[in-house]
Amino acid sequence: MSSVEVRDQQPEPASSLIPTLPGSHYTDPTVFSLEQSRIFRRNWFAAARGADLPTPGSFRNVEVGGEAVLIVRGRDGRLRAFLNVCRHRGARLCVAESGTVGRSIQCPYHAWTYHLDGSLFAAPNLNSMKDVNRDEYGLIKVALREWLGTVWVSLADEPPSFADTVQAAVSTRLGGSDVIDRWGIGELALGKRITYDVRANWKLIVENFMECYHCATIHPELTDVLPEFADGYAAQYYVGHGAEFGAEVAGFTVDGSAGFTTLAGIGENHDRRYYAITINPQAFINLVPDHVIFHRMYPLAVDRTIVECDWLFTQEVVDSGRDLSHSVELFHRVNQQDFDACERCQPSMSSRAYAGGGVLVPSEHHIGEFRDWVVAAISG
Amino acid sequence: MSSVEVRDQQPEPASSLIPTLPGSHYTDPTVFSLEQSRIFRRNWFAAARGADLPTPGSFRNVEVGGEAVLIVRGRDGRLRAFLNVCRHRGARLCVAESGTVGRSIQCPYHAWTYHLDGSLFAAPNLNSMKDVNRDEYGLIKVALREWLGTVWVSLADEPPSFADTVQAAVSTRLGGSDVIDRWGIGELALGKRITYDVRANWKLIVENFMECYHCATIHPELTDVLPEFADGYAAQYYVGHGAEFGAEVAGFTVDGSAGFTTLAGIGENHDRRYYAITINPQAFINLVPDHVIFHRMYPLAVDRTIVECDWLFTQEVVDSGRDLSHSVELFHRVNQQDFDACERCQPSMSSRAYAGGGVLVPSEHHIGEFRDWVVAAISG
Amino acid sequence: MSSVEVRDQQPEPASSLIPTLPGSHYTDPTVFSLEQSRIFRRNWFAAARGADLPTPGSFRNVEVGGEAVLIVRGRDGRLRAFLNVCRHRGARLCVAESGTVGRSIQCPYHAWTYHLDGSLFAAPNLNSMKDVNRDEYGLIKVALREWLGTVWVSLADEPPSFADTVQAAVSTRLGGSDVIDRWGIGELALGKRITYDVRANWKLIVENFMECYHCATIHPELTDVLPEFADGYAAQYYVGHGAEFGAEVAGFTVDGSAGFTTLAGIGENHDRRYYAITINPQAFINLVPDHVIFHRMYPLAVDRTIVECDWLFTQEVVDSGRDLSHSVELFHRVNQQDFDACERCQPSMSSRAYAGGGVLVPSEHHIGEFRDWVVAAISG
Repeated sequence: MSSVEVRDQQPEPASSLIPTLPGSHYTDPTVFSLEQSRIFRRNWFAAARGADLPTPGSFRNVEVGGEAVLIVRGRDGRLRAFLNVCRHRGARLCVAESGTVGRSIQCPYHAWTYHLDGSLFAAPNLNSMKDVNRDEYGLIKVALREWLGTVWVSLADEPPSFADTVQAAVSTRLGGSDVIDRWGIGELALGKRITYDVRANWKLIVENFMECYHCATIHPELTDVLPEFADGYAAQYYVGHGAEFGAEVAGFTVDGSAGFTTLAGIGENHDRRYYAITINPQAFINLVPDHVIFHRMYPLAVDRTIVECDWLFTQEVVDSGRDLSHSVELFHRVNQQDFDACERCQPSMSSRAYAGGGVLVPSEHHIGEFRDWVVAAISG
Repeated sequence: MSSVEVRDQQPEPASSLIPTLPGSHYTDPTVFSLEQSRIFRRNWFAAARGADLPTPGSFRNVEVGGEAVLIVRGRDGRLRAFLNVCRHRGARLCVAESGTVGRSIQCPYHAWTYHLDGSLFAAPNLNSMKDVNRDEYGLIKVALREWLGTVWVSLADEPPSFADTVQAAVSTRLGGSDVIDRWGIGELALGKRITYDVRANWKLIVENFMECYHCATIHPELTDVLPEFADGYAAQYYVGHGAEFGAEVAGFTVDGSAGFTTLAGIGENHDRRYYAITINPQAFINLVPDHVIFHRMYPLAVDRTIVECDWLFTQEVVDSGRDLSHSVELFHRVNQQDFDACERCQPSMSSRAYAGGGVLVPSEHHIGEFRDWVVAAISG
Repeated sequence: MSSVEVRDQQPEPASSLIPTLPGSHYTDPTVFSLEQSRIFRRNWFAAARGADLPTPGSFRNVEVGGEAVLIVRGRDGRLRAFLNVCRHRGARLCVAESGTVGRSIQCPYHAWTYHLDGSLFAAPNLNSMKDVNRDEYGLIKVALREWLGTVWVSLADEPPSFADTVQAAVSTRLGGSDVIDRWGIGELALGKRITYDVRANWKLIVENFMECYHCATIHPELTDVLPEFADGYAAQYYVGHGAEFGAEVAGFTVDGSAGFTTLAGIGENHDRRYYAITINPQAFINLVPDHVIFHRMYPLAVDRTIVECDWLFTQEVVDSGRDLSHSVELFHRVNQQDFDACERCQPSMSSRAYAGGGVLVPSEHHIGEFRDWVVAAISG
């Protein structure tokens, strides 16, 4: 293992076991409602992959913080996001999860029509209505950024600094602000997408993703490929650290067989290693030499979360039609194993045994930072 | 178009766009609960068609304002309505949606037995129970009126004047208190009944029914028959106005083909015209020369409404076995188009884009009267 | 009928009809939540049949008062109960309804491992964690008693006296503290188990079980076997009374045909008789000469209750493979008839007709004791 800095610079807590959030934070609809307004509607949210909207008029519908958000590519090629609600009587403009509109978006109820930049273009009899300022009746805009091939939106009136939140999470984890560029995520192509419907609170999924104390128990395939994971320390525990492949392992695949050519930007430092990044509140990225696994979570209810997981390879690999299944299968199994574990915890969150929360062992202590981040976010 | 009086006598509002109800009125269970108690349990409610209870002992179960109401025809031929709850231990007396009982209604749990007028007739061991005044233990009565072949019930302790509410809504719309008699609705026979289960708040359905600004967009068959609807003004916008059939149109059918013989009472003024009436809170009537379409809404939850729609023709037409489908199909399509639109609006009602409501264009301004009626009713 | 003492020693109430609980007690989730904490988590709860956990490592999962309780037989043969929640991060330890573990219980998430007595045995890296007192992290214990072959648990910190509650209910009903021993319930074997999912509040089921005013109406098979039930007085109305079989009846079977040999302990006093016992809040026992019927209720929601019903015969009868169906069918029909009636009452509980409750006739007056017990319990 290469020399690494310990992530947590603070002195080790006096006790080896520190508390998680109390159980009610995982079961109380009031807490979930606070999280929707103070976490998911205030922060940047990884909403979609940009390449899913390839041409002018391409749209995608996503639920962010309880709001239906419509992402659409304009005639000018730019992506924009709006609340998916007609300003007249509220009909949902596009109901399909994704698709393509023409030069404008027309409400199917009364035919109010909007340009792809959200401005009101036309409505029946509009010209005969006095006093109507059509600038007032454009679609309600949602802030949007593209980075890492991903569309990030923020429902905040004044979104937080993208650099200080999303980008800082990545650079802090990888130990440098341009390290992530080596994977060229924006240029990669979608090899496989799997969507999981998880009957668990979103925070159980984040906490699961952050620690590897469970790896030895539930991830036999993953610990075969990354033997150090059997010790229980997640790669995320150390700044800049990537978990090293086992000596016999040829690639990040379900059976350790060779994967694909190492990505062009990956040097020796990052080859044969696995990196995992959590971007609060709902994106996870896994980096391996030949592909990238990108998770976007969509919390729908206090006990239900959709996770959309993309396996990204070079365009060349995808175009070649080569069999991706050995690569995909490894983390698909990890996902299933993890989500089963989260679903197994969810019902206990309402037990009096968990009223004060559970406990974190030393190799899980960095989950305490997430706990504190959540508490601060919903208190503010 | 014949000369008409403008319905709204007040000066046009300063702005061309006035607000609808705020979104929470369509999504908040507390508001729905208030509506149940202050609207649906206080007003007259179109509960059933009288002819559905043809003989002594015929009954029908309906849910009105959250209460199970049992309508039953007595030995004397009169209809009466009761809460469908045994006075002893609360069992539902009749659970089928409709059917026939014998000379009395017997509770299937402990055999308490009621006359068809609701009075307690017998119970096991009742005679040996001292101090029991059987007058106290009759079924709880619900006020009932028959008009237009329809059974109207009111759960109010002191129901409002039937003349000032239900009948006034009809005469105000038609411009005269006896105009409705020309259609002889009480004598018509049921040709077809279709029940719709709509995943939308009942007020979206009322608002949809009241305006025709959407007709050009979603009702191609209807605007073919009634060309003036393409202009966006509902027949309801004008006192006494009926929308005129297109010049090429032979009847109110899905393809404009001829329907049936004009009803006996319809004179030239009302022939080749379509009239629509909204009776707050939950009945709609459509009048055309050869038939009548009668909608009864049963709001079940803040986001769910059952609509029962009857197509009524002369007894002769129904008995003849003639094909009614061209007539039925027109408004069945209109219903489907409308309810789809309402369901498309429902999810947006909880968006912050609709927190302050949507807007009404001039041809929808009369919906503002309904809005004000609702607000006054639930405040009182 | 043999000479009996009247159970209710108090003077007959002034009115022949006294009130039940108000309707909201059967529909309000807040009341149900109070009942969970103040009735089901404070009292002794008949959770399982002991013989269902035959060997060391056998376990059974039950929901008691909203908590998942894990009952497990130890290496020492003793039964113990715990909250089914890992002390680390809360995963449910065993998810199957029943099964067998090995020498210990291992959490499937992070492999924390508990002895069958609940103490923490091992956890990955535990030895390297300083300051961790493993005594603090044993499973949370639930009080447990075995009696009548039944596992009774109590979630109370200080459970009530078992003798003064469970055992007193039985001896008060049978008129002596050792009468129940004659049936040797602990030695009987399970002949048949049927589980019912009843869409009704648990109190409707208790009230139904306590009275026989409904027997003539809904239980034709039962009143054929026990003719006195046609008069409406439940056996429970009288201390020590058992309802006598009809003169032509050979056994407690669906058609009155002979059952099996009378149990060894049953003397003339108890032969050819049926006894019914209600043990608050959720166990019912029926005693007949040749078998015992034991009901355990599991209230899951304000309007949903699971009832698990065991038919118990001598081991010899069960081992013989003889046809039990005539015996089982009688009370299975009674159960179905009763639960249908309860489900028929549930929807009326929210009617304004039941806002103040229903009424109890004289033969139901002992239900008033249950009503008062519930009110006192949830008030305290």
